[in-house]
Amino acid sequence: MNTPHDHIVKSYDEEQRRLLAELVRMGEMAAAQLEAALDVVARRDDRAAERIVANDEAIDALEHEVSHDVMKLALRGPLARDLREILVALRIAADVERIGDYAANIAKRSMALNLAPSLPQTRGLDALGRLALQQVRDVVAAYGNRDAEAAQRIRARDAELDTLYTGLFRELLTYMMEDARAITPCTHLLFMAKNLERIGDHATNIAENVWFLVHGEDLLPPREKRDATNTVG
Amino acid sequence: MNTPHDHIVKSYDEEQRRLLAELVRMGEMAAAQLEAALDVVARRDDRAAERIVANDEAIDALEHEVSHDVMKLALRGPLARDLREILVALRIAADVERIGDYAANIAKRSMALNLAPSLPQTRGLDALGRLALQQVRDVVAAYGNRDAEAAQRIRARDAELDTLYTGLFRELLTYMMEDARAITPCTHLLFMAKNLERIGDHATNIAENVWFLVHGEDLLPPREKRDATNTVG
Repeated sequence: MNTPHDHIVKSYDEEQRRLLAELVRMGEMAAAQLEAALDVVARRDDRAAERIVANDEAIDALEHEVSHDVMKLALRGPLARDLREILVALRIAADVERIGDYAANIAKRSMALNLAPSLPQTRGLDALGRLALQQVRDVVAAYGNRDAEAAQRIRARDAELDTLYTGLFRELLTYMMEDARAITPCTHLLFMAKNLERIGDHATNIAENVWFLVHGEDLLPPREKRDATNTVG
Repeated sequence: MNTPHDHIVKSYDEEQRRLLAELVRMGEMAAAQLEAALDVVARRDDRAAERIVANDEAIDALEHEVSHDVMKLALRGPLARDLREILVALRIAADVERIGDYAANIAKRSMALNLAPSLPQTRGLDALGRLALQQVRDVVAAYGNRDAEAAQRIRARDAELDTLYTGLFRELLTYMMEDARAITPCTHLLFMAKNLERIGDHATNIAENVWFLVHGEDLLPPREKRDATNTVG
């Protein structure tokens, strides 16, 4: 729990600003990983995919570091109003870490995808991915700017992502039924699409936490679980 | 942030014990949800599945409550050694919440599965599920008992779960290739199996946190991402 910096006593506010900047940087790293993952899927580049998988550990390590720093700050925090700031920082760090995991998993699966001929649905996956990436970038910025209105817009946009996902899911099922040889690669695309849909959910979680940070009360209605593919029969 | 109990000042240790008990209860609730989900898959019972999906909100609400209570305790905590206890409690609450989500998702997908004739692989899913359930039960008990040795055994057992999952994954792919009509229900089984594999990962996370709680340092080697299906070509 001790770091070499323990002897430097910074002001609480200064420390809090530093942590916010670190968390935003972590969010930007996760977004960059996602963008790189989408690129390797499109370019079918196994070497680059391996690098993305390896990079994920840096985000995981950063999440642990941020959590520790946030908690150390919590133990210094004399005011109950800091509770919200701290809880939100911990939750956002966990969401960002998961986004990084999903991005790495997409890169990993792209290597399996490259064992089979290219599938037309890869374009649909890319479109879904670009939307998810935009959501992540926007919500990290909304957190950095404490912008609750932007957060609410981002949260509302998650429905678009779910609609795209559901369409791609159905298209992949149809394709699998028509060509048994496509089943294995399509299964990877299904899981990659699901990862992107989950990234959207984590962006939504972050948006809700930005709202909570600014407005204190959870005035937003409970989030619908909109993945309609759970019930595709 | 204010609760009706704010005027009752309990001792720090008393409050900490109460929170530990609450978190263990939350873990047991998640295990019960998973067990109920496995039962509805086997019995093909849509009504019971709907109840499980509805119950998930109770776990989510409890997670928020526990996180708040833990943070309130953190703000009172005068000693740095409490940091580990608090961080671990927050992380375990988040893992338990995710386990509950996956259990609810399994219940939800069982309803889609019931639209098609019963598949033989449902038995394989049940075997995977029972193993995941045992992992969850054992790791919640290990946390309650502060038993790092038990946690280490649980963590090692995750490899078994991954092996079962990989076998089921391949079996499902083969079945889909042989019978195009089975593709939609098999896709649900694939995602349900993946949910169980993820539950195993969360049980492993909890085990690692129990170890960290007791031993302070992360002496365990980094967790391998053992899902071999990511690279099935």
